[in-house]
Amino acid sequence: MAKLYHVPLSPFCRKVRLVLAEKKIECELAEERYWEADADFLRRNPAGKVPVLKIDNMTMSESTPICEYLEGKYPEPALMPKGHEAKFEVRRIVAWFDDKFHSEVTSKLLYERVNKKVMGQGFPDSTNVKAGAKAIKFHLDYMTWLLDRRRWLAGDVMTMADFAAAAHISSLDYISDVDWNRSETVKDWYAKIKSRPAFRSILADQVPGFPPPAHYADLDF
Amino acid sequence: MAKLYHVPLSPFCRKVRLVLAEKKIECELAEERYWEADADFLRRNPAGKVPVLKIDNMTMSESTPICEYLEGKYPEPALMPKGHEAKFEVRRIVAWFDDKFHSEVTSKLLYERVNKKVMGQGFPDSTNVKAGAKAIKFHLDYMTWLLDRRRWLAGDVMTMADFAAAAHISSLDYISDVDWNRSETVKDWYAKIKSRPAFRSILADQVPGFPPPAHYADLDF
Repeated sequence: MAKLYHVPLSPFCRKVRLVLAEKKIECELAEERYWEADADFLRRNPAGKVPVLKIDNMTMSESTPICEYLEGKYPEPALMPKGHEAKFEVRRIVAWFDDKFHSEVTSKLLYERVNKKVMGQGFPDSTNVKAGAKAIKFHLDYMTWLLDRRRWLAGDVMTMADFAAAAHISSLDYISDVDWNRSETVKDWYAKIKSRPAFRSILADQVPGFPPPAHYADLDF
Repeated sequence: MAKLYHVPLSPFCRKVRLVLAEKKIECELAEERYWEADADFLRRNPAGKVPVLKIDNMTMSESTPICEYLEGKYPEPALMPKGHEAKFEVRRIVAWFDDKFHSEVTSKLLYERVNKKVMGQGFPDSTNVKAGAKAIKFHLDYMTWLLDRRRWLAGDVMTMADFAAAAHISSLDYISDVDWNRSETVKDWYAKIKSRPAFRSILADQVPGFPPPAHYADLDF
């Protein structure tokens, strides 16, 4: 059976978990305190980060290459559309969330509020938290703009792009940092994706010292 | 004809330039001072960064999705191998350079020494420069380890992974930050890739105020 080394609130791990679950690939989860740089873990992954996926006799790191591999090797159900232009748009949006959204929002809210405490690195930096809280509004507006034109983020079918976005949004929702009053459109999109069976394990996550708000696991939030 | 908005020393732009040139796709280059956030440029690319490629009636951002698109739409010569495992390894190494190498080395050397001055953001931070100079040694050793086992970085054929790595290495070589005495193996690899016709435009780059060292464009360095 496949095995995923992860931390529960990491959006990169969540993206891989969602793809595995949607494709019904059975996978054991192992929490990895990667910042303690355990020698065994560094042997598995010289980059020293999560997710690391053991599958098909390989040990893989880097969430986007992992997801591309899973899509290639386990094509059903498809999470990439056909057509070069449509594939580009999916990959662009995945990169948007994992790069721009990550540096402007996730790292400034989740990493300040949760990771610093869990890793024993002190208190949140309020300048960063303010910048993250401001930036997420712009990103929710961008998502609204996309979703006003398409059924899903990258087009009219659900793709990897929706999972990449939902991975970040769900981690931020765990710490109540998503303002669901800002956009009915984004809320509807999230309600659809949240109600998928693939989302269940993510809604059951619990981080000691950080209980999720009541609405986090509620499908009718 | 295609048009690429770029800055000469950006490794992300160089990766796209190399892929375009290797595939013999004619492309006009336009330098873009993206940090001045020109309104026209932001209309072309809401992420506000380079590269931006106009091709096939699309305006594309994000270097890796762009390269994947070019590989899909213009498959000859192939820069991705066949087989899911081999493709994964290419994508993993591209991500290694664009993520880990970029944050540990490129941003600490090139951005401190060049971008800060060009963008009018003051002087290099010596702590960052020292950290970058230390980290590049580890990365050159990792490249040596890979290249002792394979003809090219991701396997026995040249791929996108070699271009991603060469894009970063060449930008650092422009500012004399690559110690060519550290690894004969890496030097041999770079000599092979540097002598390709696709590399010519990169070796002709000139950044005002930063003349390249004599060995930069020398194929027999």
